[in-house]
Amino acid sequence: MGRVYNFSAGPAVLPEEVLREAADEMLDYRGCGMSVMEMSHRSKPFAEIIETAEADLRELIGIPDNYRVLFLQGGASQQFAAVPMNLMKNRVADYVITGAWAKKAWKEGKIYGDARAIASSEDETFSYIPDCSDLPISDDADYLYICENNTIYGTKFHQLPNTKGKDLVSDVSSCFLSEPVDITNYGVMYGGVQKNIGPAGVVISIIREDLIRDDVLDCTPTMLKWKTQADADSLYNTPPAYGIYICGKVFKWLKAQGGLEAIQQHNIEKAAILYDFLDQSSLFSGTVRKEDRSLMNVPFVTGNPDLDAKFVTEAKAAGLESLKGHRSVGGMRASIYNAMPKAGVEKLVEFMDTFERVNG
Amino acid sequence: MGRVYNFSAGPAVLPEEVLREAADEMLDYRGCGMSVMEMSHRSKPFAEIIETAEADLRELIGIPDNYRVLFLQGGASQQFAAVPMNLMKNRVADYVITGAWAKKAWKEGKIYGDARAIASSEDETFSYIPDCSDLPISDDADYLYICENNTIYGTKFHQLPNTKGKDLVSDVSSCFLSEPVDITNYGVMYGGVQKNIGPAGVVISIIREDLIRDDVLDCTPTMLKWKTQADADSLYNTPPAYGIYICGKVFKWLKAQGGLEAIQQHNIEKAAILYDFLDQSSLFSGTVRKEDRSLMNVPFVTGNPDLDAKFVTEAKAAGLESLKGHRSVGGMRASIYNAMPKAGVEKLVEFMDTFERVNG
Repeated sequence: MGRVYNFSAGPAVLPEEVLREAADEMLDYRGCGMSVMEMSHRSKPFAEIIETAEADLRELIGIPDNYRVLFLQGGASQQFAAVPMNLMKNRVADYVITGAWAKKAWKEGKIYGDARAIASSEDETFSYIPDCSDLPISDDADYLYICENNTIYGTKFHQLPNTKGKDLVSDVSSCFLSEPVDITNYGVMYGGVQKNIGPAGVVISIIREDLIRDDVLDCTPTMLKWKTQADADSLYNTPPAYGIYICGKVFKWLKAQGGLEAIQQHNIEKAAILYDFLDQSSLFSGTVRKEDRSLMNVPFVTGNPDLDAKFVTEAKAAGLESLKGHRSVGGMRASIYNAMPKAGVEKLVEFMDTFERVNG
Repeated sequence: MGRVYNFSAGPAVLPEEVLREAADEMLDYRGCGMSVMEMSHRSKPFAEIIETAEADLRELIGIPDNYRVLFLQGGASQQFAAVPMNLMKNRVADYVITGAWAKKAWKEGKIYGDARAIASSEDETFSYIPDCSDLPISDDADYLYICENNTIYGTKFHQLPNTKGKDLVSDVSSCFLSEPVDITNYGVMYGGVQKNIGPAGVVISIIREDLIRDDVLDCTPTMLKWKTQADADSLYNTPPAYGIYICGKVFKWLKAQGGLEAIQQHNIEKAAILYDFLDQSSLFSGTVRKEDRSLMNVPFVTGNPDLDAKFVTEAKAAGLESLKGHRSVGGMRASIYNAMPKAGVEKLVEFMDTFERVNG
């Protein structure tokens, strides 16, 4: 069997070129006589791998010198604790609740202080982004927290909240490197790489230097203290080296695609193919308020759970994988990250069109 | 260039068969049409990968049903915090200080309670294991902590401490699966996999069920609470899936070698080749008290730092990689984990013999 079109929400499709290179280098990385998996993280070849990865990421996003880039472990879920542990000086923080992951982050914040949910879209199953132009930001808030792209529900902040001067902390796991961003709007931007960048097991945190502090909460594990990792250039202990190596290859691939502006154009085109189809379909419909639609995760339903199940099964048989929606939304979800080719989305829409004729 | 003999202390050599299989499956895992890196951690193929890995590990060690196996992130360094956070009911614990890693674990324990160093071999640069037959165990100690094989110094507990009824917590990172163990002697056995089992980014904790508790310290991050991970069968959030997949292949490889008794025999033979040479050499000498020697990490010196440096450089040119000792011991260190072939140790000794004739 050949390669399928993989619409998984994460771990997710990676560029085929990256996988081919990784396979070629598996037994002998560029004449070193060993795999990257076998290499000391203090060796010269690995130093070059992690330094090049960071430099390429800085170039892609345009990260200024007063921001640090950390390669960490434990996924976004671990950063849910690291954020308050590192930032809650006043023990107060504001959260915008736009889905299950923002909610988990907020609940984790409550372990460490007064984490306040100051806006939410839970009233309509998180199918929209609340108005964040004039939020009731707490005077003594240490930060304002958002989950910028909501993987499960398919919503995206197309405009960042008015933080009223507070530092913005954003979980960008499912929109990481999908479009240009102005990092200076953020205090902390972080994301698990397993959706748009690499294999699960690496989380990248981009943190403004003054937020990397010694005066963290007393009970902060050394490994969760950002300063530990910043002072050691992400090599305080053995990092997830092979994952970082794959991320580095994806950064090179993104640069070869033309960088974040080019990939954004590509993502807009891909998403338009699917959304345009949904907007004219008499069988399928999108579940998200139009102006808040994500370019990365596209949930849709037929309105009939049996038909949804039939669709997912038949799509799989046609080489269109992992289209089942999250149980909290139901129906289908197509995750169309950077590495999903346009041809994959076209094939999906073609399949939906045929399915609609037969079953509509 | 072909494959070298890689004596790195970790990340370290992996079985070539495992790497070949991983390369072959990189673009299409057994007809799934995708890489294991691209696969949802909730998918059937990945469920089979992690369940098979756990079953094979249980079979290799002989883990009874009242112990849980968790695949975690953050390395041993993160468990240094997780151990007290999960176990320090009385806020007291005893530590045996046999090297830099035990010391780091002890210092991390002090963040959370009264972590007591009740024995140490620091007086002689950790070149031996203290007598642990009658330790001054604290009456209210929540556990006794050891680092069972000391990677930097090349020592190993060949007999476990008399814990006087307390639960033993052991970091086995650098001797994991190198010999049979009776897991019932341990409350918790854990280790990073990047020395003897797989790629960096996975830590395996084997924990007696009654030590997986809800009443952890108040400030414990959800991700560091063992119960979170145990209740979710290590899938609370996205696990380091590709690393677990490689670990699974190494477990299969170990079974094919004949299991832990066979690999122990192999390890004893390999280590004997090197130690026997050291014991008769007039140039090289081992740095560890004989009865405490590790089968995995073998430090040695010439007594002349310039000659040591020359040795490391010439060995590298001869395809014998990463033999430089840790800066705190100096000289050389050969890490000869499970996957180091006997031929590698033989070639090292041959090289040492020639070096001695020329430079002795």
